[in-house]
Amino acid sequence: MAEQNTRAAFEKVFRETVVPAIMEDVRATELAGNAVEWIEKAIVHNTIGGKYNRGMTVPDAYKVLKGLDKLSEEEYTRTAVLGWCIELLQSMFLVADDMMDSSITRRGHPCWYRMPGVGTIAINDSFIIESGIFIILRKFFRSSSFYVDLLDLFHEVKFQTELGQCLDLLTAPEDVINLSNFNFQKYYYIVRYKTAFYSFYLPVACALILAGIATEKTLQQAKDVLIPLGEYFQVQDDYLDCYGDPEFIGKIGTDIKDNKCGWLINKALEIVSPEQRKLLDENYGKKDDEAERKVKELYLELDIKGHYHRYEEESIKMIEGLIEKVDEATGMKREVLTGFLKKIAGRSK
Amino acid sequence: MAEQNTRAAFEKVFRETVVPAIMEDVRATELAGNAVEWIEKAIVHNTIGGKYNRGMTVPDAYKVLKGLDKLSEEEYTRTAVLGWCIELLQSMFLVADDMMDSSITRRGHPCWYRMPGVGTIAINDSFIIESGIFIILRKFFRSSSFYVDLLDLFHEVKFQTELGQCLDLLTAPEDVINLSNFNFQKYYYIVRYKTAFYSFYLPVACALILAGIATEKTLQQAKDVLIPLGEYFQVQDDYLDCYGDPEFIGKIGTDIKDNKCGWLINKALEIVSPEQRKLLDENYGKKDDEAERKVKELYLELDIKGHYHRYEEESIKMIEGLIEKVDEATGMKREVLTGFLKKIAGRSK
Repeated sequence: MAEQNTRAAFEKVFRETVVPAIMEDVRATELAGNAVEWIEKAIVHNTIGGKYNRGMTVPDAYKVLKGLDKLSEEEYTRTAVLGWCIELLQSMFLVADDMMDSSITRRGHPCWYRMPGVGTIAINDSFIIESGIFIILRKFFRSSSFYVDLLDLFHEVKFQTELGQCLDLLTAPEDVINLSNFNFQKYYYIVRYKTAFYSFYLPVACALILAGIATEKTLQQAKDVLIPLGEYFQVQDDYLDCYGDPEFIGKIGTDIKDNKCGWLINKALEIVSPEQRKLLDENYGKKDDEAERKVKELYLELDIKGHYHRYEEESIKMIEGLIEKVDEATGMKREVLTGFLKKIAGRSK
Repeated sequence: MAEQNTRAAFEKVFRETVVPAIMEDVRATELAGNAVEWIEKAIVHNTIGGKYNRGMTVPDAYKVLKGLDKLSEEEYTRTAVLGWCIELLQSMFLVADDMMDSSITRRGHPCWYRMPGVGTIAINDSFIIESGIFIILRKFFRSSSFYVDLLDLFHEVKFQTELGQCLDLLTAPEDVINLSNFNFQKYYYIVRYKTAFYSFYLPVACALILAGIATEKTLQQAKDVLIPLGEYFQVQDDYLDCYGDPEFIGKIGTDIKDNKCGWLINKALEIVSPEQRKLLDENYGKKDDEAERKVKELYLELDIKGHYHRYEEESIKMIEGLIEKVDEATGMKREVLTGFLKKIAGRSK
């Protein structure tokens, strides 16, 4: 049987259903033509081009939860549309994050705010992209009994992501380098709030709601596994930034130069001698190849790689244990969670 | 009887009820202390200090709609809390608008993004302020039958405001001066969408919902009067920017220098001769006292003041006519609308 939820099929739902539904509401206001075009471009440019792992999880998880082999055309569209709301949420954050991080490119293209004529207008565009989520939720789910649960869920997760971003920005400002700001407690807060809730918990929570089995119990089951899984995913990301193959991961890591509060530096800070700490203070966060080299050399000395591999092994075991304990009598399916873990464990990009 | 809904009483609800309710959710995540303080400061700094006309309209209009002399303590808090959601919406937009307009001060203080250490972090802060709205709505109205109507209303009006802002930014970019971009159609779209919906319609719609008499009919009645009223209000604002007494309006107008697509320039463009148009093309939107003086001289020649006064007279008459036609059998009260008009008509600040 051909795979139903391909990247192409998922993207088709965006172009043929999601974008027209949003633009219908824009056009209904009789907005001038150039602004209509602007808005469509802002939405499409910033939402298309990623891996869609988050969004595509909604139909996938829904299928498993419902115990179906294949979704009807209508079910696929409906679940994919909800998946696109997650992608829109991410899109809104990426537009804003790129401005806050002074990033240059995103997915191989210039960041939206760096496109000709955009600049700070990108702030309003990120608001509009967010509004797109709620237009879609209203158009497709207003009459469902769970409409209000979807609204509350998106508001909750949006807020969590903003709290994570807030701590990240305050912990590692671009211009103030102070490693005393860093610690694992902050690190894991940032990872959980900025990434894990919207990337891991939200898609499964959406599928649970659509499948009609979202209860305090099942949502908690999802959270209990998916937040640790999201943490592990981000730690991997930090590892790959330094040790991944640039050919594979599609970018050259810059976390050291960018003063990022990542897993590797936090691990290093935990185990350094006073002299080694001095070296870190003098070289971390500098936009300078030589300084970066020195930090990497120290990481080698400290065997950060070995520490990471032990962390990874323990994490996988821990998450497998969590999944094993999941009680399927609630309606939750272990397969939803193991599917995630399989995709992630030991990835090299 | 002492006035119940004073500015001080309204602000007290913010400090004692609204802010603690939002911060309770922030603290529950165990966010690090400096970030907790940051968020509270971002919310308070940007939401306090205005006139609160929008927010204070909610208790006022509710009282009239319910035919009450005085609200109970509990009713006052509840209606004021909803009023603060409108002030938070405005706060979110002001933080962002100031960045997009490169503004320097707001309400006599530096704009938030210009405060030490803030910069582009203000973008995420504006997101957080918006999230505050939905935390408040959930905490105070989740169990009400109209909860979902409030959510839909806030999403709708937020989106309308963003569309107005979008057209405004595209019509009068800071760096491209081209008067051919301007016309009254765009002008009134911007005014309606960027200002009138959230400033005039939203407070009354909130009061209608709280009072339990929000129907398609009453909401339309509100819109039919309040959108024209909001237009008139903004035209006044544009007039006062040029002709108001700086002592009274609390600022020196800069619309001409800032290339604003305002009522006066649109009226001028409608009636200029080709030579006069040339003068406008050469002098409008220049950061230059002499150029501004030339534009003002031409406004004098064109009797823009006289045009404005005729517009004002006609607008008031038209709005009075609209109010007169309002059918109170629906539950709508003319007094809600006349109250607005009285506050605004002929104002000099």
